Amino acid sequence: MVGGGQLARMTHEAGIPLGIRFKLLSDTPQDSAAQVVGDVVIGDYRDLDTLREFARGCDVITFDHEHVPTEHLRALEADGIPVRPGPDALVHAQDKGVMRARLEAIGAPCPRHRLVSDPADVERFAAELGGGQAPGGFPVVLKTVRGGYDGKGVWVVRSSKEAAEPFRAGVPVLAEEKVDFVRELAANIVRSPHGQAVAYPVVESVQVDGVCDTVIAPAPDLDEELAGQAQQLALRIARELGVVGHLAVELFETADGRILVNELAMRPHNSGHWTQDGAITSQFANHVRAVLDLPLGDPRPRARWTVMANVLGGDYPDMYHAYLHCMARDPQLKIHMYGKDVKPGRKVGHVNTYGDDLADVRERAAHAAGYLRGTITE
Amino acid sequence: MVGGGQLARMTHEAGIPLGIRFKLLSDTPQDSAAQVVGDVVIGDYRDLDTLREFARGCDVITFDHEHVPTEHLRALEADGIPVRPGPDALVHAQDKGVMRARLEAIGAPCPRHRLVSDPADVERFAAELGGGQAPGGFPVVLKTVRGGYDGKGVWVVRSSKEAAEPFRAGVPVLAEEKVDFVRELAANIVRSPHGQAVAYPVVESVQVDGVCDTVIAPAPDLDEELAGQAQQLALRIARELGVVGHLAVELFETADGRILVNELAMRPHNSGHWTQDGAITSQFANHVRAVLDLPLGDPRPRARWTVMANVLGGDYPDMYHAYLHCMARDPQLKIHMYGKDVKPGRKVGHVNTYGDDLADVRERAAHAAGYLRGTITE
Repeated sequence: MVGGGQLARMTHEAGIPLGIRFKLLSDTPQDSAAQVVGDVVIGDYRDLDTLREFARGCDVITFDHEHVPTEHLRALEADGIPVRPGPDALVHAQDKGVMRARLEAIGAPCPRHRLVSDPADVERFAAELGGGQAPGGFPVVLKTVRGGYDGKGVWVVRSSKEAAEPFRAGVPVLAEEKVDFVRELAANIVRSPHGQAVAYPVVESVQVDGVCDTVIAPAPDLDEELAGQAQQLALRIARELGVVGHLAVELFETADGRILVNELAMRPHNSGHWTQDGAITSQFANHVRAVLDLPLGDPRPRARWTVMANVLGGDYPDMYHAYLHCMARDPQLKIHMYGKDVKPGRKVGHVNTYGDDLADVRERAAHAAGYLRGTITE
Repeated sequence: MVGGGQLARMTHEAGIPLGIRFKLLSDTPQDSAAQVVGDVVIGDYRDLDTLREFARGCDVITFDHEHVPTEHLRALEADGIPVRPGPDALVHAQDKGVMRARLEAIGAPCPRHRLVSDPADVERFAAELGGGQAPGGFPVVLKTVRGGYDGKGVWVVRSSKEAAEPFRAGVPVLAEEKVDFVRELAANIVRSPHGQAVAYPVVESVQVDGVCDTVIAPAPDLDEELAGQAQQLALRIARELGVVGHLAVELFETADGRILVNELAMRPHNSGHWTQDGAITSQFANHVRAVLDLPLGDPRPRARWTVMANVLGGDYPDMYHAYLHCMARDPQLKIHMYGKDVKPGRKVGHVNTYGDDLADVRERAAHAAGYLRGTITE
């Protein structure tokens, strides 16, 4: 697996019971996954020679993130190393421009969008949109086509004057209408090379300041028809794009009962962390099984409700003192920490709770995440 | 953790979500746990200098097996390293003579027993027992007081002539009555240094040729009163002996509705593997929490029935080809392989199944274990 973040850490954890010999390419020995994996290579994934050297002896390569250059992936494939997901699929998670064009071509519902070249171009796009809360069709969402995550590389601008910043990096910029959504959903599926696929229940993802805060599985009060549409959409995208492994389709649910695709991620995803304790087979276990072309595991939930809450870094450099309180308060609490240095606002772990009473399950998750962060002290 | 077997492998797996920095002392780099742990020291646990060097920088030491010499554990404690379970407790899992004497002293029900010095002594012990299916009170069970496991170091003898073998090694030998049991049970509990304890449901353990084959949780049709007695007994043994961590109390259930203590193990135990997929908190997670003096997790079951079946080595050197069949046949199957070289009869993994229908759950576990071993081919 290329990339030493928490997704690799949790994929390794899920691979241990299958007897998988897991090999990791990590930037530093301190990275989240590098702390717990036996077979670690330290190196730069942007360097093709490093990738080639790492890939020697691997049966298959997969990824903790989308940042490996597409041309390097093609080179590995040309060397005869199976790359899953492959570059032709992964490019859609790497480049938002390519993603939007392809989704449009297959008729997947998307926010209105266009590649834009400068602030004047943004102004024209806004005018075409019409409506909007600000004059001239604004606000508009601008995104760099590559490299953004967790709200980084995304701007909501209310005028062409505010639109200068995204163009400064010199990377292509995608403009999108600001969707008037009622909430965000995620449809997560896993697909194997021979085409088997499983769909997890559609979840609600609650964002705070552009970062995922809470995931509720399944999404409460979601229209059954719409949930089915979302799962079918995710399965169709995976098939059309040739995705292998876990695919997260982040969606907007609109006030008028439609779904629109927001983002795609082709790896285990924050919106699927609940599956570790809430589903029969976790997203990590199924990602491993897909990548190895093994039959997939049952994606159904084990509890009526499961809630995941992210733990962000707070003021305490060490969060382990908080274990005493959290574990004693809730003996059913599932803590998943990533071994990362605590920096304010950084995702350093998550908790899962499950049960029959959604209000109780939410309260327990929110309390534990807040206590671990230090924003709740009792 | 000292010892690189599958118990250490699965303890590491359970420690990853807690952000534990897990350090392993392993005999070889090929050992089950050494394959998947990042921080591995290769060395001999029988050598005190090796243990001392390993223990440097550890917050606490625990064990994959009972074979570390008691005097070495005392030396580590004298160095100021917390050893959990401590030597005063662990000696009862290391020495069956000490165990029997202590259990007798606290009034725990045991088979009749006596340390014996030669075959003539065995004959006298048998005569005192009376009854028995063979003449003179035989058969009698003989056990070396140290070093036995999975039927090794245990003999069932039907005459004093057959009793010569156990004395050849020159280690003390314990004689026990051969209990006329209806089945074997295990009462598993976890206890922390500050005295908190949790009790798992009492399970039935089905042995084949002296090796655990299947564990059913909870033990079917077990009298509620007797189950409560077994849990209370395990909790009392843990308290009286000062056990920290997981304690497995293997029990005989007699035809007249009594329980007798067969063996003690002070570490995660084969009879608790079902908890990985069948309990809210696994024995491995709770062992880690106990050893670190953290509040313990909920030990209750998540399914009505959970069945664990051991996978023994068969004729195939590589069992992974069998994954295709097993995973496709049962998408809910939980496979736990240890990464060990396959040798006929060696425990190389286990499977867990769970559900509402015990017959179905048993069939699925037995089929998968048999298919992985190669004794079932369809």
